Amino acid sequence: MNKKGLSILMRIRMRPNSASKLSLSPLTNVLNQTQMNSQGNQSASSNTEREFELVRASMNSAISMNKTEVLDAVLNDFSAGYFNLDHENRRRLLLVLAKEYDLNRTQVRELIKQYLGLEPPSGENAQSSGLEEEGLLSTFYRTERNLRHALKPVYEVLFERLNTHPGGLRFLSSLRADILSILAEENIASLRALDSYLKEKLSTWLSPAALELHQITWDDPASLLEKIVAYEAVHPISNLLDLKRRLGVGRRCFGYLHPAISGEPLIFIEVALLKNVAQTIQEVLWDDPPILECEATCALFYSISSTQPGLSGINLGKFLIKRVITLVKRDMPHISTFATLSPIPGFMQWLLSKLASQSKLAEAEGMSQSSADGSGSTFWENILEPEEEKAIMDSSAGIAAGKTGMEVMLNLLTSTNYEWTNSAELLSVLKPPLMRLCARFLLQEKKRGKALDSVANFHLQNGAMMERINWMADRSEKGLCQSGGIMVNYVYRLENIEEYAQSYFSKGHIHASADLRCHWRNMEKEQIRRFP
Amino acid sequence: MNKKGLSILMRIRMRPNSASKLSLSPLTNVLNQTQMNSQGNQSASSNTEREFELVRASMNSAISMNKTEVLDAVLNDFSAGYFNLDHENRRRLLLVLAKEYDLNRTQVRELIKQYLGLEPPSGENAQSSGLEEEGLLSTFYRTERNLRHALKPVYEVLFERLNTHPGGLRFLSSLRADILSILAEENIASLRALDSYLKEKLSTWLSPAALELHQITWDDPASLLEKIVAYEAVHPISNLLDLKRRLGVGRRCFGYLHPAISGEPLIFIEVALLKNVAQTIQEVLWDDPPILECEATCALFYSISSTQPGLSGINLGKFLIKRVITLVKRDMPHISTFATLSPIPGFMQWLLSKLASQSKLAEAEGMSQSSADGSGSTFWENILEPEEEKAIMDSSAGIAAGKTGMEVMLNLLTSTNYEWTNSAELLSVLKPPLMRLCARFLLQEKKRGKALDSVANFHLQNGAMMERINWMADRSEKGLCQSGGIMVNYVYRLENIEEYAQSYFSKGHIHASADLRCHWRNMEKEQIRRFP
Repeated sequence: MNKKGLSILMRIRMRPNSASKLSLSPLTNVLNQTQMNSQGNQSASSNTEREFELVRASMNSAISMNKTEVLDAVLNDFSAGYFNLDHENRRRLLLVLAKEYDLNRTQVRELIKQYLGLEPPSGENAQSSGLEEEGLLSTFYRTERNLRHALKPVYEVLFERLNTHPGGLRFLSSLRADILSILAEENIASLRALDSYLKEKLSTWLSPAALELHQITWDDPASLLEKIVAYEAVHPISNLLDLKRRLGVGRRCFGYLHPAISGEPLIFIEVALLKNVAQTIQEVLWDDPPILECEATCALFYSISSTQPGLSGINLGKFLIKRVITLVKRDMPHISTFATLSPIPGFMQWLLSKLASQSKLAEAEGMSQSSADGSGSTFWENILEPEEEKAIMDSSAGIAAGKTGMEVMLNLLTSTNYEWTNSAELLSVLKPPLMRLCARFLLQEKKRGKALDSVANFHLQNGAMMERINWMADRSEKGLCQSGGIMVNYVYRLENIEEYAQSYFSKGHIHASADLRCHWRNMEKEQIRRFP
Repeated sequence: MNKKGLSILMRIRMRPNSASKLSLSPLTNVLNQTQMNSQGNQSASSNTEREFELVRASMNSAISMNKTEVLDAVLNDFSAGYFNLDHENRRRLLLVLAKEYDLNRTQVRELIKQYLGLEPPSGENAQSSGLEEEGLLSTFYRTERNLRHALKPVYEVLFERLNTHPGGLRFLSSLRADILSILAEENIASLRALDSYLKEKLSTWLSPAALELHQITWDDPASLLEKIVAYEAVHPISNLLDLKRRLGVGRRCFGYLHPAISGEPLIFIEVALLKNVAQTIQEVLWDDPPILECEATCALFYSISSTQPGLSGINLGKFLIKRVITLVKRDMPHISTFATLSPIPGFMQWLLSKLASQSKLAEAEGMSQSSADGSGSTFWENILEPEEEKAIMDSSAGIAAGKTGMEVMLNLLTSTNYEWTNSAELLSVLKPPLMRLCARFLLQEKKRGKALDSVANFHLQNGAMMERINWMADRSEKGLCQSGGIMVNYVYRLENIEEYAQSYFSKGHIHASADLRCHWRNMEKEQIRRFP
């Protein structure tokens, strides 16, 4: 879930257009080599079979080689060679790695046979066991250890070696970005197993203890600040002045740095110091600070961006948020509220598909507006309340037409240039159903027991609660397209973070304010009334 | 094998006398707290059952707790509580950890049953497999992953959490020192399994990539230098002046530091810059440099000391030596030879037990000197050559008596105050058999296919070769007691290190100079002559 959460937060990097796809930065000197690399990639579409075989051979050496003094050279060859491969050959190579370097299953089965033939320790009488019994136990533990080792894929060697090789961690992150990009196109079980193993390894190596929390300021090297501009995925930074403002008075920016991936944060968070929890993004993206820092009582997280697509699914955000809260509290004790102003990237997609399918269903069954009471089909559901339906049908003239409220709403929401947002009447007609359905979407729509919305899932698993949804909070094209301009405030309370994260993780329980829950309850009552 | 090598190198720390046993340094502020601690230990002999139960409860919380904000406190409680336990209660607690927090074997067996029922990927047709087959494969990989996870002991959680906790790595090293000390007294299979798991974890966390090579100089903090004095295990440092000399002109000292164990190197090596490979320790432990540094052609490693008994068996020495060679070569290109002057801690023990058992055998079978040709018993072997036997019998009068040359030799070598070393005649009589038998011991005596002598095993597995044995190289009581005063030079050649280490590791092959091998060959011929 987390994977998806972060992937949305950084969708610009996660879904590169096909031109730039897989042209990832190589091990050293990102900027210079990126150019070389993209040139390499252009010619790389004609990778010869020989080129592929060379990289494959260096990969094999990197795994089987025992001479450490040549190993560094082999690892360099392999990573350089890999970056020169085109998409198709990277795919082929990764499949070779996943399939031919997994584990020796004959050995695993042999060990399982041995293991099942041995008497496990009983616990109770082990204390008083004699020498002979200790001998049998030793055999048991040794077989267990051998089985544990045999179950490790051979490609672990490559990962371990790259991890301790200069630039290797960054390379592994690029490798995983490629794997994810391939898996997004087709589901290959062996490659998914490789990905899951690599992800576990990366999680260990990127444990919070290995990460350095760094406050990013205007005094940081330009090479680092440039990365902030490049990777900011939520509210793009337009120019240097804009960047300077985001690092200036009334704002903070914090990032997690890893010693092996120098010069760029793995993830960074932007904070605005405010009097109250902001309801619109305009309140946050000001040019001049609206208040003195000492008057602030709220730290608002308005953007979290992850820079490494290959680290998708590894929850760095949770630790970052907790550490930032602790740090801000220590430096500014007058700040008592920690909240976000977050997009709802999945809302419109869910709503439009719901409206479209219901409208189709209605059309197929020849329903008229008058029969729109749900009696016609068990699959059909009018997600609008009667008064909303009426208001929509009454006010739509001129922009959109339709036989049912839902059809009209669908046509309104998909009208070019979001025309509906220019009409005060339509805004007031659409606000009640959109706010209500948004609350329903956030609180009720789930996937495998977790919030369907990726950003919601991200904050909920970090231990936040849903506080409030805000009408016309982001009128940018992106904001209207994603969520009809609605944004949501999540609130972090240090004392509840672990409890909330835990109950969300184990039971999918979503903590929400009474205010937000109100919309949902109204809707529930509505449903109960309709389907008694 | 490595374990034993290092344990001998640091035997002073590894085998604490019973008074100081287990009074290990706590997490922070080693010096102050060591005192508190040893006081704690004195009163700790009366640990109440309640104290034990409290530590056990905090250990359980440290493993099962999910609230990160309390976890730090729990881990602190646990480590502080652990240090206050006496030997017996630490033993009890470690057994609880080993036995009650290992793995869920019911779950393992359940997963094995599932796993064996699934079709493994075949490799050949996996490429062309359809959607359904990918689904089956997914199940297979998932079950395999679950089995892999189920085979991890529960105590891994404690290790992982301590590793990312401030001071935790040092605590884990102390914990393992205790485990090793218990295992030295009694072999408990579950505790050995715990140790082997912890050792694997520590090896990962202490990979060379995580270690910083630091040249220790007189400019380093006194708190660090004090550790060098305390831990130097090969040639003790007598006073500050002695320490200053070891860091001064003509000498170098390098250590490996880990960020999580600050202020003391995990292992350090002392180097003397010489004209030739030294034959005696007196040539190394000079007060004033015998030559200018620019005249040196040899860097002699005269001492390697490990400071953490809990890291026994984790080969930090190999990487340290390789990096030191590279560094010295870069800074002083005129240095071309890298060698050691090393003790042979196992020689006398082996020789005396051989002499004693053969003498007893001879006595039991009523052999006289004249029947000492081996015909009396198949187990009996005269390890002396006829001319050696004769010389010993002729010259022993006054100090030692005996019916056979071996019995006389045994009595000579075990005479009080090493009296034999004061007689020029005895020295010249004993030199040929001792040098010959020392070469045999180093080159031929093995245990599980590896050199029996622990220091030999250490250097051989690091990729060194045996160059030369030196008569009366260390006349100190320790030197005479360990090896009759003989020392050995191992030579490191960067270009051969990996090859030699590999062939020693896989085939037990010992690379030695022709000179050294000569002794062995003579002896071999001798054996062939005697048992044709």
